[in-house]
Amino acid sequence: MLDRSAKGVFVIAPTPFLPDGELDLASADRMTEAFIAAGAAGITILGVMGEAPKLTEQESLTFAERVIRRVAGRVPVVVGASAPGFAQMRAIARGAMERGAAGIMVSPAPGLKGDEAVISYIAQAMEVVDAPFVLQDYPQLSAVTMTAAMIARMAADPRLVMLKAEDWPGLDKLTSIRRLEAEGKMPRLSILGGVGGQFLPEELARGADGIMTGYAFPEMLVKVCELMWAGKRDEAQDLFDAHLPLIRTEVQPGLGLAIRKYVLKRRGIIAHDTLRAPAPKLTPETMGEVDYLLARLARTQPLAAAA
Amino acid sequence: MLDRSAKGVFVIAPTPFLPDGELDLASADRMTEAFIAAGAAGITILGVMGEAPKLTEQESLTFAERVIRRVAGRVPVVVGASAPGFAQMRAIARGAMERGAAGIMVSPAPGLKGDEAVISYIAQAMEVVDAPFVLQDYPQLSAVTMTAAMIARMAADPRLVMLKAEDWPGLDKLTSIRRLEAEGKMPRLSILGGVGGQFLPEELARGADGIMTGYAFPEMLVKVCELMWAGKRDEAQDLFDAHLPLIRTEVQPGLGLAIRKYVLKRRGIIAHDTLRAPAPKLTPETMGEVDYLLARLARTQPLAAAA
Amino acid sequence: MLDRSAKGVFVIAPTPFLPDGELDLASADRMTEAFIAAGAAGITILGVMGEAPKLTEQESLTFAERVIRRVAGRVPVVVGASAPGFAQMRAIARGAMERGAAGIMVSPAPGLKGDEAVISYIAQAMEVVDAPFVLQDYPQLSAVTMTAAMIARMAADPRLVMLKAEDWPGLDKLTSIRRLEAEGKMPRLSILGGVGGQFLPEELARGADGIMTGYAFPEMLVKVCELMWAGKRDEAQDLFDAHLPLIRTEVQPGLGLAIRKYVLKRRGIIAHDTLRAPAPKLTPETMGEVDYLLARLARTQPLAAAA
Amino acid sequence: MLDRSAKGVFVIAPTPFLPDGELDLASADRMTEAFIAAGAAGITILGVMGEAPKLTEQESLTFAERVIRRVAGRVPVVVGASAPGFAQMRAIARGAMERGAAGIMVSPAPGLKGDEAVISYIAQAMEVVDAPFVLQDYPQLSAVTMTAAMIARMAADPRLVMLKAEDWPGLDKLTSIRRLEAEGKMPRLSILGGVGGQFLPEELARGADGIMTGYAFPEMLVKVCELMWAGKRDEAQDLFDAHLPLIRTEVQPGLGLAIRKYVLKRRGIIAHDTLRAPAPKLTPETMGEVDYLLARLARTQPLAAAA
Repeated sequence: MLDRSAKGVFVIAPTPFLPDGELDLASADRMTEAFIAAGAAGITILGVMGEAPKLTEQESLTFAERVIRRVAGRVPVVVGASAPGFAQMRAIARGAMERGAAGIMVSPAPGLKGDEAVISYIAQAMEVVDAPFVLQDYPQLSAVTMTAAMIARMAADPRLVMLKAEDWPGLDKLTSIRRLEAEGKMPRLSILGGVGGQFLPEELARGADGIMTGYAFPEMLVKVCELMWAGKRDEAQDLFDAHLPLIRTEVQPGLGLAIRKYVLKRRGIIAHDTLRAPAPKLTPETMGEVDYLLARLARTQPLAAAA
Repeated sequence: MLDRSAKGVFVIAPTPFLPDGELDLASADRMTEAFIAAGAAGITILGVMGEAPKLTEQESLTFAERVIRRVAGRVPVVVGASAPGFAQMRAIARGAMERGAAGIMVSPAPGLKGDEAVISYIAQAMEVVDAPFVLQDYPQLSAVTMTAAMIARMAADPRLVMLKAEDWPGLDKLTSIRRLEAEGKMPRLSILGGVGGQFLPEELARGADGIMTGYAFPEMLVKVCELMWAGKRDEAQDLFDAHLPLIRTEVQPGLGLAIRKYVLKRRGIIAHDTLRAPAPKLTPETMGEVDYLLARLARTQPLAAAA
Repeated sequence: MLDRSAKGVFVIAPTPFLPDGELDLASADRMTEAFIAAGAAGITILGVMGEAPKLTEQESLTFAERVIRRVAGRVPVVVGASAPGFAQMRAIARGAMERGAAGIMVSPAPGLKGDEAVISYIAQAMEVVDAPFVLQDYPQLSAVTMTAAMIARMAADPRLVMLKAEDWPGLDKLTSIRRLEAEGKMPRLSILGGVGGQFLPEELARGADGIMTGYAFPEMLVKVCELMWAGKRDEAQDLFDAHLPLIRTEVQPGLGLAIRKYVLKRRGIIAHDTLRAPAPKLTPETMGEVDYLLARLARTQPLAAAA
Repeated sequence: MLDRSAKGVFVIAPTPFLPDGELDLASADRMTEAFIAAGAAGITILGVMGEAPKLTEQESLTFAERVIRRVAGRVPVVVGASAPGFAQMRAIARGAMERGAAGIMVSPAPGLKGDEAVISYIAQAMEVVDAPFVLQDYPQLSAVTMTAAMIARMAADPRLVMLKAEDWPGLDKLTSIRRLEAEGKMPRLSILGGVGGQFLPEELARGADGIMTGYAFPEMLVKVCELMWAGKRDEAQDLFDAHLPLIRTEVQPGLGLAIRKYVLKRRGIIAHDTLRAPAPKLTPETMGEVDYLLARLARTQPLAAAA
């Protein structure tokens, strides 16, 4: 269900909590429907944005099961399984695959040094996971560099089906990978962009097959993809530009997830914007700024989710 | 000439080079005129964007002298003097002030640990510089955190006149400082925003007196300030939003300066987009992306500089 | 059972694994006896050295229960509960205290910025843990700085009973804390040194009440404490110096735990030197170097554990 | 004068200052004589320990000229030329070679990401320097990883004559390089150990040709090399062990250089222990600890330098 031909918008889902910090499974259902209604080609859960390190293994599997059951095969569900040890990674990956996940996403462990150490780590992780593998390239968080040439070597393992490309800046790397593929030096991967959607038009023009991000208006991401693929670049850029102020607000490090949950709540997609502690709180000023941007967006885009 | 009432757009100038890497003083003149024509309230040189660590002390002073002479007192010139040792900081600061600089900008040394160490370092730097002092708060580069309460303590020294506020995210800190001032807990500083202009409307709404950044269309920054101060927030945001795609492109770490020099060259403001080695080179794809954004901007904004 | 008068050697215990990576509870028993026989005043489990991030919550509690039951009240057991979220921290802390732990050790979360943020985090952690609290000051790993003045403020909460002082260099900070205590500016804490034992004589001379470390010959640490407290500094230093080559070998970042488990296995204290993957493997050359140092030590110190 | 057969102890010299921070050239002479009298096979100046980033270009060359003139060809002098830009690197390298330096030492620029970027940077630096090249591998400071395989590729350029190997832990890397050489996969380099001398016996046993470090008793380093090469490992270790407490004290990050200058002053090798600001100051407690260790050493080793 997840292979190297995957394309479109994979929405990264947050983990909704009740005000007391417990899992909010009702919101999980509603959110799942909203993302599918928005045109998601896939859903990704338990990534950084899913507060995965703050969940117990049991909570992770409970939430995964709920989302996968609700999706009911309509789109593939990718489950994040990055962990300090391979034992936990295996437990999450197996549990998720048994419950119907389509693939497992892993980021190299922070602190890996030198190309060979990174390649070796990912090779081991693919053995541990033993399922369709999504490689997350997010050096702003992992502090691990993966060049196009390194990814080409990793892609010799057929389990590596998808690259979540969110190095920053990363557009030239995306071009380099597509060039290596065109030269026959590596198999063609599904590549989805990231970095919060900040470079979606450029990513698609460079050859990305779509994007995997948690921007709170996934229907815009879907529409931009359609316009780009229809050759309507100016129209795509016009739509993208209308959202860029909010995108910019959501990618602020340390604060972005709180803003996204606030927007998703305002859209009625989740019931509460609770984050698990420790976590930042939005000030009234920040909420006012987001409200202002939402009001501007509402002139052209319905605030309420389609679902 | 630089005091706590300073406001407006201080343009951060790059250091122009000839293709062989030597100082391009003719471009320095042209650039200076262009920035003043664009409405700059001040010009800042020899910052990070000025490739200051790649200049000899003599080159730094030669360039500073040229810019200051050309400005001829029309606006204040701020000169960056961050250095690994206080001896060099003093040499640059004295040399610049003797040549007519209005103030000196310093960032805390990377690696300082703990609030007291940072406060002590800045107190010493103010002694060393002994001139109107601009504190650069740019933790993405310095890895040094300065809270509102710390800045309040530093502001007890009357030489601290201006804060270049570019923590990211940093809007709530800006609000906290203005609150401490309103409560009489610290004197009122001139605060200029930063982070490449990405949050200019919000910074102004939070109480910034302007912005200090090197975005390649400073006339837009000037106009946004005017509109905001005239209470025309929607118009300000409309103009800002039109530039945000290019702003986003210019703030990419490691690549941004190369893009800015490319845009300034295309605008005729500097003759060459040379960076001193080691430095990244723009790919044709990146240049194409910038060209596309410039063409879109040109519909509403003249590409050629006013000067 | 753990209060501000605690003193002596708290041995940091590794988590023993069978060759297949499962918990080795028989070794846990043997190790516990060996450490008590060596003169430990306390045992600390589930710290960094205990590979805690690679254990599931259930494994952590199983291991804690086994050690605590074996200790049977002879010495206090401190349990590490650092975690990305407070929910997990609470779960481990409560589980450990219910099983008979004497206190809980927590390190500030990596990435905290500014003194106030750190103080606030620890205040919240003390609420979450709500038990005798051991503050781990290990900035080489956490990248969080805690000055003497910050620790003084934290110590206003009576739950903070012990500081594991392993900043590096950290001796002047230790002196500063003891000075603040002497001046009545903070209550007297139990302070145990760390950094692998590298500065044990100096730590004791500066006022530490003992040491908390995992050096594989805890009986030496105990003896050095006794000699120092008996005023026999030269003798203490002589004994310490004999072990310093091995101490130096054990503190190598990334490699140290593998070496410690190897030594503990050679001493018969644990059955296997298995680390959970991903983990480094010792080369024959490294094992040879350790063997050589053990042979030299054996001239003065029995290799086999007393237990 | 510096080639791939170089061996022995290259002493890293500090830059002596007068109490007012000016260069102390008289101490430079005395220090140079002391290091040669101690048996130095070479002298390295303007490294990290030489406070090079705190010197102007002119001061650097003045100091280099003084040391080189005093050495008068008795041993090779290596000059550090790491710099943010290649223009400065070239200026220091040329100036030093014209004055009689034997080689130039460079560390990869901090922030380089990925093996290829590092290899490319060093290739460019060798072009810039165009002289016998000493590669400094000190990732604790540069945050750049260089594996054995990367160094093998760099060694294809015959200008790379020496590796200053101070990764930590780095002994297995040293073995890997010697293995690649033995397998004919790279030419044999001169490899000198480092990390303050902490692993000198092991480095030599692993195949290092000597050591390049600034430990304040270079005559011990020389003697340990001689004993190791004469097959007297136990004697070498005995001598080394006697110094390890002081070595351990000198390698403390941020504090080490102040301690080394203090010891060199106490030995009469330099006149003042001045560091250029900003710099840490030794507390009386730290000085007392160093004095105690010096007194212990004096039982077996004369405190006063031979020169």
